Amino acid sequence: MTEVRRTYDDKLAMILRTAAAVFAEKGYHDASIREISRATGVSLSGLYYYFRSKEELLFLIQHHCFTTLVENLEAVLADETDPVMRFRVMVDNHLRFFVANMAEMKVLSHELGTLTGEFRTTVNEMKRRYTDACANVLEEVVPEEAGIDTRVAVFSLFGMMNWIYNWYHPGRDVPVDELVNQMSRLFLYGCTSEDSGRAPDFGSDIAADTKPSIWRT
Amino acid sequence: MTEVRRTYDDKLAMILRTAAAVFAEKGYHDASIREISRATGVSLSGLYYYFRSKEELLFLIQHHCFTTLVENLEAVLADETDPVMRFRVMVDNHLRFFVANMAEMKVLSHELGTLTGEFRTTVNEMKRRYTDACANVLEEVVPEEAGIDTRVAVFSLFGMMNWIYNWYHPGRDVPVDELVNQMSRLFLYGCTSEDSGRAPDFGSDIAADTKPSIWRT
Repeated sequence: MTEVRRTYDDKLAMILRTAAAVFAEKGYHDASIREISRATGVSLSGLYYYFRSKEELLFLIQHHCFTTLVENLEAVLADETDPVMRFRVMVDNHLRFFVANMAEMKVLSHELGTLTGEFRTTVNEMKRRYTDACANVLEEVVPEEAGIDTRVAVFSLFGMMNWIYNWYHPGRDVPVDELVNQMSRLFLYGCTSEDSGRAPDFGSDIAADTKPSIWRT
Repeated sequence: MTEVRRTYDDKLAMILRTAAAVFAEKGYHDASIREISRATGVSLSGLYYYFRSKEELLFLIQHHCFTTLVENLEAVLADETDPVMRFRVMVDNHLRFFVANMAEMKVLSHELGTLTGEFRTTVNEMKRRYTDACANVLEEVVPEEAGIDTRVAVFSLFGMMNWIYNWYHPGRDVPVDELVNQMSRLFLYGCTSEDSGRAPDFGSDIAADTKPSIWRT
């Protein structure tokens, strides 16, 4: 990668991060490109060098999020063969990413239906790719005898994890390691089974050296 | 209740139901009172007899939803003393309500932060009342040894259930009885514990005679 290219990427990353924060704060519909310009310190014509419309900006944010989420998942799964540990690194990857990128996740969750045309098609394909990868991990770990429908299982898990943008306060609530632990155990062993108390307290070392933010800091 | 009062309520219920569908379809910000007027067949001045602004209309929808949800929960809990069955009727009440009122639930989930001032305060109080009632039911059923934080438990459950507006298609996915069954078992016993397959297949008779729609039909 040439030096020019890296500078381009860094500036775009800063614009996307700032725009996501503005959208999360004001709502996508109420935020204007003029406000994004003010918040980023980049002129309107400077912004239009990177995207042609507010919708394309929203697309870039969503695309960047899903790309990072999928690539990180593939990377952490590559080193794991044990089904329960594969489940655990998947939950870890997802939750750690969400906690580190709450503004983006709020924009993603709220504006899932806002994109149109090719933007929408592309993001939907990435969503499907990510959902399929997670469903595969789940199928290895959920025995058929449990009688849980695959769609119910995977979207129950996504719901549990994605809903945190509505309630989770880093600092006030349990730390993210503990969140990963408790949700993993809840999903695998339930909250009343004797296993849930006795379940292995998955260590926090697994993802300790990953950089969960999608943005270079 | 006098005849005049009932007519008033019926008409308001129709307006709220139709407005929720319009908001869910177009998004709250993009929908205008003029479109609500067209969809309901009620003149603008007729609409302004019931509310003074689009925000008050959103408030009335949210208020009506939470009131029904809380009152229904209190009614079904009144007849149950067994902790597991209390949990089960709570999940049943919540999911059945959501499935029957998907447009309202989408509006509720998307526009949680839109209301301001007293509207916001009132809805937040109702939300807290409902969350507390559910947390109490959960605390009876989740043993302390499970080591699951109450906030993690209650919001994991809400996330599982509320997320359905993003994926659940009545008719294509498992029927709502089965959804209630599987989510209850998943949450109580997990998806890998031997209990999850052997868990009692809660009957569907419990709420068979409740009317889950918040709207009179």
